[in-house]
Amino acid sequence: MKHSENHQMRLVARPVGIPQPEHFALVTEPLPQIRDGQMLVRNHYLSVDPAQRGWANDEGNYSAPVPLNTPMRALAVGQVIESRAPGFPEGEFIYGWFGWQSYCAATPDAVLRRVDPSTRPLSANLSLLGINGLTAYLAFNRLGNPNPGDHVLVSTAAGSVGSFVGQLARLAGCRPVGLTGSPEKAVVARARYGYEEMIDYRQEPDIALAIKRACPEGNDIFFDNTGGIIADAAIRSMRLNGRVIQCGTAANASWSPTPAGPRQEREVLTRRLRWSGFIIFDHIAEFPAAAIELTKLAARKDIVFDEEILIGLEQAPLALASLYEGANRGKLIVSLVG
Amino acid sequence: MKHSENHQMRLVARPVGIPQPEHFALVTEPLPQIRDGQMLVRNHYLSVDPAQRGWANDEGNYSAPVPLNTPMRALAVGQVIESRAPGFPEGEFIYGWFGWQSYCAATPDAVLRRVDPSTRPLSANLSLLGINGLTAYLAFNRLGNPNPGDHVLVSTAAGSVGSFVGQLARLAGCRPVGLTGSPEKAVVARARYGYEEMIDYRQEPDIALAIKRACPEGNDIFFDNTGGIIADAAIRSMRLNGRVIQCGTAANASWSPTPAGPRQEREVLTRRLRWSGFIIFDHIAEFPAAAIELTKLAARKDIVFDEEILIGLEQAPLALASLYEGANRGKLIVSLVG
Repeated sequence: MKHSENHQMRLVARPVGIPQPEHFALVTEPLPQIRDGQMLVRNHYLSVDPAQRGWANDEGNYSAPVPLNTPMRALAVGQVIESRAPGFPEGEFIYGWFGWQSYCAATPDAVLRRVDPSTRPLSANLSLLGINGLTAYLAFNRLGNPNPGDHVLVSTAAGSVGSFVGQLARLAGCRPVGLTGSPEKAVVARARYGYEEMIDYRQEPDIALAIKRACPEGNDIFFDNTGGIIADAAIRSMRLNGRVIQCGTAANASWSPTPAGPRQEREVLTRRLRWSGFIIFDHIAEFPAAAIELTKLAARKDIVFDEEILIGLEQAPLALASLYEGANRGKLIVSLVG
Repeated sequence: MKHSENHQMRLVARPVGIPQPEHFALVTEPLPQIRDGQMLVRNHYLSVDPAQRGWANDEGNYSAPVPLNTPMRALAVGQVIESRAPGFPEGEFIYGWFGWQSYCAATPDAVLRRVDPSTRPLSANLSLLGINGLTAYLAFNRLGNPNPGDHVLVSTAAGSVGSFVGQLARLAGCRPVGLTGSPEKAVVARARYGYEEMIDYRQEPDIALAIKRACPEGNDIFFDNTGGIIADAAIRSMRLNGRVIQCGTAANASWSPTPAGPRQEREVLTRRLRWSGFIIFDHIAEFPAAAIELTKLAARKDIVFDEEILIGLEQAPLALASLYEGANRGKLIVSLVG
């Protein structure tokens, strides 16, 4: 590996809706020179996340859009190979905002968590210990307030977050039921992710009826990554004092203009719901403790995790587009060290 | 007063939407005979509440509909005039489910709170210390989590609940802004109920713009009794981690079929909202302590309350219908002792 060139996957056109390969370009440039306070990070694994759609788009969002002609914003795990940043010696592994590129001149504020290099595989820092596992752990426990015996419905049960929610729900003594988009994923979710029942929503003409069948007693917690018609039906399955956790809104390709749906005010009122939004980056201070807990659960085999690793930076754009087709099996990761 | 006849305002037809006088009939029957475990309550004041629409209707709701040809379900303050119920001696004043009638043969489970007869006026047990004041106090404090400096928006600011929310928000060091439907009510809300700014929504072609003008920094708490377009705009004015308290949904005359509106999932997510439903009858155990607090605030003149008292049972149906026109000034009460 010669440390002389940096390969970047840059965002070069502003997508409307789901980013496609034509919105990106692979660019080679000289290795960046670091200044005082910076470190040079060699990326090992890059994260591919649904949230990247929002970062690439120009619509109102919880973070500023990625500037055109810069590396796509992404989380990554890398190693410090040169450092002028106090506290980050050469050789250290870190997890943070290093982008879709092979090297990053980073400042310490880009680091979300220090990585224990004995964690194996190292890619687990983007799945189990990345925003997927951390989101499942923190959102489910902080906003879901799970109690033993609770009925839990998860809208993207076989996905990179939902696969953890089912297992965490089971560990908390709850009865998790999930939705997914294929029979194969339904099988995996029941076999591996703790789900008691699975609903293949593509096969169901009436989602409300399917939920009623799979969750005859209603639901205490709805963990949602979709919004849209699945959420409409799920909200109407909630028991009194139910908790709805809004972690994503992937069912709607665009929120500009705002799509219409059935009004929820009466459901919130009469079911005494608590409907909360969760953005993982509000909880960075809790990452280290949550990562320790998740590592323990995985070490005990109380929790399993699946990854789908694609080799090579050039695969990143298509991987992102494929996320929204539900084609992946486990957390999508791009490896630069394979 | 001869204790020989009971006058009842019975629900005799099932309304769709807002109950009107033709759905009720005044019936006279003999005074009820009490059995063991019952007490005979002479009603002094009857409550007229927006929630009665839901109780009279047959649509899905948080309580079973009032059976036809029975007295309209209502809260009341009355005095025990004969008792075969242990712990409820003759002469005691109580607050509870005694219905729109002059006398009620009640069991102890109909009692929500014992009344201190030295509280003056006695009707305050239906306003300040009734579900209006209790709803404002418990919903605002329990679900709103107010902090000094918070920006608070209240959708029915001059109403029987909103009039307390403004004052409680002010006492908590917040900046309350309210909506109401007439210039006169806006004046009263600013002069008496603690509101910093008032929006007369009937005069505003663009509610979102009016909220932006009155709440230039956005809102931390939205206390809503309406649902509908006011809620849509208010939700889009929320600051990060804002709390939406759904206490009623009066803007929609019917929820069957469910009306459509703009989807809120993305707002809940990106603003990290916590949107909660509040039904006062979940909180009966907290009534006595809350009533003591509210009584103290009123004694210190830290809180004022307004009542509109109509004399005579025959006025109750039209009073209820008028609630939805926003014609009342303060809590609507029917007096049987005037």
